Amino acid sequence: MSQADLSGFLDQTGEQYKAIIAYDGTDFLGFQIQARGRTVQGTLEAALKKIAKQPVRIIGAGRTDTGVHAIGQVISFRLLWRHRLADLHKALNANLPQDIVVLELSEIDSGFHPRFDALSRQYRYTILNQRVRDVFKRRYEMHVSQILDVGQMQQASLHLLGTHDFASFGRAPQGDNTVRTVIQAAWSVNEPEITFEITANAFLYRMVRSIVGTLLEVGLGKLKVDEVKKILLARDRSRARTLVPSNGLCLVKVNY
Amino acid sequence: MSQADLSGFLDQTGEQYKAIIAYDGTDFLGFQIQARGRTVQGTLEAALKKIAKQPVRIIGAGRTDTGVHAIGQVISFRLLWRHRLADLHKALNANLPQDIVVLELSEIDSGFHPRFDALSRQYRYTILNQRVRDVFKRRYEMHVSQILDVGQMQQASLHLLGTHDFASFGRAPQGDNTVRTVIQAAWSVNEPEITFEITANAFLYRMVRSIVGTLLEVGLGKLKVDEVKKILLARDRSRARTLVPSNGLCLVKVNY
Repeated sequence: MSQADLSGFLDQTGEQYKAIIAYDGTDFLGFQIQARGRTVQGTLEAALKKIAKQPVRIIGAGRTDTGVHAIGQVISFRLLWRHRLADLHKALNANLPQDIVVLELSEIDSGFHPRFDALSRQYRYTILNQRVRDVFKRRYEMHVSQILDVGQMQQASLHLLGTHDFASFGRAPQGDNTVRTVIQAAWSVNEPEITFEITANAFLYRMVRSIVGTLLEVGLGKLKVDEVKKILLARDRSRARTLVPSNGLCLVKVNY
Repeated sequence: MSQADLSGFLDQTGEQYKAIIAYDGTDFLGFQIQARGRTVQGTLEAALKKIAKQPVRIIGAGRTDTGVHAIGQVISFRLLWRHRLADLHKALNANLPQDIVVLELSEIDSGFHPRFDALSRQYRYTILNQRVRDVFKRRYEMHVSQILDVGQMQQASLHLLGTHDFASFGRAPQGDNTVRTVIQAAWSVNEPEITFEITANAFLYRMVRSIVGTLLEVGLGKLKVDEVKKILLARDRSRARTLVPSNGLCLVKVNY
């Protein structure tokens, strides 16, 4: 953000707040505010501006991509509010569109930073595994009609656990390296859904969708379990498989 | 439909087909084709025209309103198809947008009429009954944050069973009366959802949404159980309560 952009926010005073929010990412161009287009950050800041009668800047824990959902995104902002916390919570939800909601709101130490203080993030990717597509789930789940070998997908995901250079599976933010620590990675079946949950200290850009795309090839029998390890060790972005669509991805939780 | 509109369909030959379809009604101006706007019928006919290379008229079992969903709408059409039935099914789903899907397709006697031959229709209305709204369910469920007395709603719904003049709860199609036979009407709880299922030989325009709106007032304690019977007996459209929104309504099944 340039100095000029910041000017409207420099005089912000008041308490610092932490909010857990959920959004249906389908109709957003991702979390981060942009010059054009509807973003989660832009929509939240517009609602806060209406309430505060002045610009309010928010900080988010994770910059989810276009079309990615959240049930546990964490944001923080500073606001001078002279009424009850519950009233601010109500006012926020009343001023937000139907595809964003504030689930929890609390006051927090002014030193809190949603991104830098986060110890780990948990994402979930949901595949609808049945012959015919489902019109009611299409916004939130990737449809795969072929039979999947979930046991093999689970085997392959074990190679991801631990600290590795994940360069094959994503791009780092500028000035950062591609080493990340995956704490948990597991598939589960709840017919007709097959779900992948992954927790890491942090994620590279598009890392989850790239990993799921690769593991999906294992499930389809197009890639062997051991080849996933080779792809990881190659540290080469061109080695991973096609990204799966963003509709199946959801930021579940940010741990502090 | 005027004679002029029919001209393109007069020379239709081939087998008659019956299809069970599902759709997310959110982005449709209802089932029935109109001069302007996106409709379920118009979208299905456009897909069939692409496949048949000529206009194909479809007939639907129920003309669902704007925003109403279906998981068991039945349609029928006539088509000359020289390949396998399974290939026609695939071609249809490949040519339909993501918010309509053909679940089942079969050949049927040429005398079959989806609307006139239907013995009964089943609708479902879903209420999300929790404090905060859910961004992922907003398209398919009506959000009610107040506590509801489902026992009272169930009591009140018993008054609807049987053959009655439902003039208080809806408008009949031109040339028809307002007497209908309700075969089943029941509430069920599956937290956080509360669901109303109703089966009748046929329904008046907006009848389910008007009935649910009235029963909801009972659940909120604004209307007594016995008053529902009085409203029914009054046969007066002005006596029923506000329509609930169409997002919670779904055509579940058509019985033949």
